Amino acid sequence: MTDRINAFVPGPRIHIDGAPGGPLDGLSFAAKDLFDVAGVPTGGGNHDWARANPVPTRHAWAVQTLLDAGATLIGKTITDEVSLGILGENAFDGTPLNSAAPDLVPGGSSSGSAAAVAAGLCDTALGTDTGGSVRVPSSFCGLYGIRPTHGRLNLAGMLPQAPSSDTTGWFARDATTFARVFSVLLGEAVGPALPRMLLPHTLLIAVDAFGFADPEVAAALRPMVDKLAKLIGSARDEVMAPQGLSVWARAQRTLQPVEAWQTFQAWVQRENPRFAFSVARGLVAGSQIPASERSWAALMRQEARGRMAYLLPPGTILCLPTTPFPAPRKGLPLPVLDPLRDRITCLCAQGGLTGVPQVNLPGATIDGVPIGLSIIGGRGSDIALIAVAQAMEAAA
Amino acid sequence: MTDRINAFVPGPRIHIDGAPGGPLDGLSFAAKDLFDVAGVPTGGGNHDWARANPVPTRHAWAVQTLLDAGATLIGKTITDEVSLGILGENAFDGTPLNSAAPDLVPGGSSSGSAAAVAAGLCDTALGTDTGGSVRVPSSFCGLYGIRPTHGRLNLAGMLPQAPSSDTTGWFARDATTFARVFSVLLGEAVGPALPRMLLPHTLLIAVDAFGFADPEVAAALRPMVDKLAKLIGSARDEVMAPQGLSVWARAQRTLQPVEAWQTFQAWVQRENPRFAFSVARGLVAGSQIPASERSWAALMRQEARGRMAYLLPPGTILCLPTTPFPAPRKGLPLPVLDPLRDRITCLCAQGGLTGVPQVNLPGATIDGVPIGLSIIGGRGSDIALIAVAQAMEAAA
Repeated sequence: MTDRINAFVPGPRIHIDGAPGGPLDGLSFAAKDLFDVAGVPTGGGNHDWARANPVPTRHAWAVQTLLDAGATLIGKTITDEVSLGILGENAFDGTPLNSAAPDLVPGGSSSGSAAAVAAGLCDTALGTDTGGSVRVPSSFCGLYGIRPTHGRLNLAGMLPQAPSSDTTGWFARDATTFARVFSVLLGEAVGPALPRMLLPHTLLIAVDAFGFADPEVAAALRPMVDKLAKLIGSARDEVMAPQGLSVWARAQRTLQPVEAWQTFQAWVQRENPRFAFSVARGLVAGSQIPASERSWAALMRQEARGRMAYLLPPGTILCLPTTPFPAPRKGLPLPVLDPLRDRITCLCAQGGLTGVPQVNLPGATIDGVPIGLSIIGGRGSDIALIAVAQAMEAAA
Repeated sequence: MTDRINAFVPGPRIHIDGAPGGPLDGLSFAAKDLFDVAGVPTGGGNHDWARANPVPTRHAWAVQTLLDAGATLIGKTITDEVSLGILGENAFDGTPLNSAAPDLVPGGSSSGSAAAVAAGLCDTALGTDTGGSVRVPSSFCGLYGIRPTHGRLNLAGMLPQAPSSDTTGWFARDATTFARVFSVLLGEAVGPALPRMLLPHTLLIAVDAFGFADPEVAAALRPMVDKLAKLIGSARDEVMAPQGLSVWARAQRTLQPVEAWQTFQAWVQRENPRFAFSVARGLVAGSQIPASERSWAALMRQEARGRMAYLLPPGTILCLPTTPFPAPRKGLPLPVLDPLRDRITCLCAQGGLTGVPQVNLPGATIDGVPIGLSIIGGRGSDIALIAVAQAMEAAA
């Protein structure tokens, strides 16, 4: 069954027992192959990366923290090459299975982590989210997934991509497991009794984002939005990105590739590594962005941050479709995929651009295929989003 | 020994006996893995190419012609990916050995063919030359090598790159073998008695090209130039590219990548294949060249063709260093390699741009490392260049 899922990196499977008696005792987890595990090469989804880098001698902070809390590590998962990809098709390691829709991509870059959790191979799995790499696969696979507030988690031992946008996130099939991992990694207790007092009092419905998604998506998410509005009490329509979702996306697709090129340039130029064409093309694009574009993008980032701070005071959250459509088919040609990827970025850019936390809530489908509803809070409001996830599940 | 040379593509070696009693009876040859051999996948130096393309059912014209003439095919040789490379370092199959200088690159893209001939594994080997892919490895490995007049040879069954520049060429260690292959492939007899009556009467020494090469190269080639001048009788200095070698190179590096992108675009966009970063980067560059640049380059090509026709009437040849320096070290980083490649193009662009035939003559070295002297004639004058090669060797 594991082979059919293709969630784990090739080679012998690792297994490291968690410390006994911790708060995550009994939980199993997997880690995207961007996280260091002592004594195991960090593959990064690219076969030339592992060869060019030393085998880590200590666990990544997130791995160590979950092990210390009692969770057992059962494998490292396939990722898009050095996290540069949003669809989950790795030309070297193949495409992890989207259990909810086997003919469709799982989403990426945390593809194997999402696939492993979706298939029930483990209870939770670590991913990373720079431009959507946890949010997109959680939407496509029908999972809870979180991109925490940028800067809150220690990223030691996680292969970076674009540091000003990089985060560590995770997946779960149920809100309780999702919250247990949160308590350990964020250090804020979320007990079963807490959610109600942590709930926000105002819900904003991002009309620009709903309008940008496929009409079927808005329709499929409508019952979840209604339920969410009822849970929270007060709801109103609001434009998230008055400058334009596509303008925010343009800024993110300027800043992120430039930083990614800065991260990987020395390795690429020294080793001339092998990549899928699309990945190399993205790196080339990052190397070519002029300083004038970067300057503009940095200003737009400031505008977007200001907008999010204004929209999302404590007690207010915003909801939007996580992705503008459900998972596309596997194996589509680049001229079809490229515009899809660009559209995804229009609904994901706010994460990397402004650093706000975002949680994907599963529950909706279109013709049986999952599509996620996202909730976003102001920076540092992660626990409120977890509380909403728990309350939504409890109200089901 | 074969393994140490790493000239041949991975997998079982092929062997096809030539027809008995032909003019190449007793000769062994190898074919760059861009030439079809019936029943054998054409690898093209890229593992995703073979998978995406049907196994050929007939031999390439050049392979069939050599077999019919009695030569025996003993293997297919490593090439830079889809012939996009000039140094001979293939990230998938490794770097064929430059027997004359084991720490240095063999040159490419016909790297394995040059390596096989240089190591004595076969008598001759087919290569392709679009932007220098026979000329450069013959200079680096110390071999005879020819880029025939563009359009003279039938390229059926040869994987194209940039059709308006693509040619089939070959390597040999001695001028007699070199000439025997010529007679068969070009259909013009070159007997041992003929060379003298075919010899040109005027030698032009390309002072711009000699000035552009490293000073050590011009010095090392001086004795060969003197010998050539003596053989031919009349010699004078001449500027080959009055618009600039770098301007001709710019035109070639506009036209060739655009055509290469046209050649490979459908495959790349459908399959998203794996490439070394530098190869993908070159394809991306080809996809980005604006129409205005292409129009200019086409005009410069016309100017260059006019210049070559004016300089090289029948009976006149021109000589220049084949490469501006001997083979660089293996494994250099891209920021070091890129300017070297650009300099090589400045001495090779005339081939793809104007279609003139060019032969590399071995014989000079710098600290024991080969460096080649090239002779160029007007379009269709290939046999005169072969005659010069034979006369130079005879006069040794």
